[in-house]
Amino acid sequence: MKVKLALLQSRDYGSGPANLKQTLRLIDEAAAKGANVICTQELFMGDYFCRTQDPELLKRAEAIPGPTTSALMEAAKKHGVVIVGSLFEEAMPGLTYNTSVVIDADGSFLGKYRKNHIPQDPYFEEKFYFAPGDLGFPVWNTRFGRLGVIICWDQWYPESARAVALSGAEIILVPTAIGWIPGEEDQHARQHAAWETVQRGHAVANGVWYAAVNRVGTEAPITFWGRSFVADECGEIVAKASTDKEEVLLAELDLTALRARRGMWPFFRDRRIDAYAPLLKRGGL
Amino acid sequence: MKVKLALLQSRDYGSGPANLKQTLRLIDEAAAKGANVICTQELFMGDYFCRTQDPELLKRAEAIPGPTTSALMEAAKKHGVVIVGSLFEEAMPGLTYNTSVVIDADGSFLGKYRKNHIPQDPYFEEKFYFAPGDLGFPVWNTRFGRLGVIICWDQWYPESARAVALSGAEIILVPTAIGWIPGEEDQHARQHAAWETVQRGHAVANGVWYAAVNRVGTEAPITFWGRSFVADECGEIVAKASTDKEEVLLAELDLTALRARRGMWPFFRDRRIDAYAPLLKRGGL
Repeated sequence: MKVKLALLQSRDYGSGPANLKQTLRLIDEAAAKGANVICTQELFMGDYFCRTQDPELLKRAEAIPGPTTSALMEAAKKHGVVIVGSLFEEAMPGLTYNTSVVIDADGSFLGKYRKNHIPQDPYFEEKFYFAPGDLGFPVWNTRFGRLGVIICWDQWYPESARAVALSGAEIILVPTAIGWIPGEEDQHARQHAAWETVQRGHAVANGVWYAAVNRVGTEAPITFWGRSFVADECGEIVAKASTDKEEVLLAELDLTALRARRGMWPFFRDRRIDAYAPLLKRGGL
Repeated sequence: MKVKLALLQSRDYGSGPANLKQTLRLIDEAAAKGANVICTQELFMGDYFCRTQDPELLKRAEAIPGPTTSALMEAAKKHGVVIVGSLFEEAMPGLTYNTSVVIDADGSFLGKYRKNHIPQDPYFEEKFYFAPGDLGFPVWNTRFGRLGVIICWDQWYPESARAVALSGAEIILVPTAIGWIPGEEDQHARQHAAWETVQRGHAVANGVWYAAVNRVGTEAPITFWGRSFVADECGEIVAKASTDKEEVLLAELDLTALRARRGMWPFFRDRRIDAYAPLLKRGGL
């Protein structure tokens, strides 16, 4: 099966309603260009608010399913497309998650993934806002392929990609919000290269299609580095967006190619599940 | 601490004694160039014999420690260098492993690693020769850094690199024997790129120095692709050998750089060991 994937690399438009309106416009554009699966950047309903720790910002969190999910379901049904949208979820007052919703091409709500790995660094103060995910690493059968979703910081962890691949994911989608902060200019190229490399490596190790969707624009002090990309099962980049422009990035994914690759390199056959117990420990000397 | 690493990218010289003699010569050369840690290619004592399934070839296996280990221990002591050597081990008649020995700079035998992931493909008939390793993923404190060793097919598995990194490895060394077979010419560049990418990814994900040592030459029908390399903790290649020449590939590794990187990207802090149980399953639908 061939699937046309669209990544919505966008920026903040200043308010929830404005961001939703723009994202729905980009969904329309992607669908008009033939997309079957559409994925938003991380937390597309606002700016990347985790730059500070402010209890007021918790008010942005919404129920899932909820109003934004409904708007995405309507768009999915209208266009006959699968949509993955990244939202700020309130499970109850005082319990919020960084969550992605998965909606099938008939507009039905398939489920959600709650980001498992939560960073905490200056200007990426996510441990303040997000409880660690409690839904494991789910995978969904959609009209257009079996999808796994991981989110941002998850992307650095081989465990995330492996876990969804073990459940049969053919495509791993990764909403993200990553950029540079001032004072590390000499590191910028290396940081971006490492980010791309480790994720291309996940594609190889797991024999999957892999797509990361980043935002663009400066939200002081972060300049998001864009460069959303799609990698094939050999880690080769088949589509890549600009550093600073809003874009609907399109790529055609041949899902049947995965079977041939895994015949050539049958990594899953030879895993040493009897020897992996150390992976469930923190490690250290 | 800065460590000078030497990878011995070599070829088959036709017999065990000839290969040992040449490897000792390369060790002399590496030591003369200031190497502190020296690593051989996989199964350096012979040709890559796993191209066919032949019980006669089991006679090549030797005890570890044993004669070749002793020769390497002597060389290590003479030069004050750490040596990692890849051998064909007989644990008892009918039980053989693909094993690497680790020898400290005073010539003492530190231990061995038995390859955990065993391939079985046309001309890479390793399941015939090697029982899967039973020693876990050990790591050794040497005079020149904390070393983890994995072997060839292990290199495609994020689990291997993660396991040794969790035990504190600063450098991961990977003896290997990988090449192309005829009939896949249109795939050659992609195969090599995937091999390099997935390993550079391990370096990023684990914040370690990473070095793969391949052989060169054609042993029909395989043409080994050489290109041994050393990657830093950002996955950047700092040294890379040719496709077809015997080489002592040198690189200087600053082990203190790892601490700074892990401060910037504290992946180990945020691992979700409570969510990784699926990694100990085979997976599948």
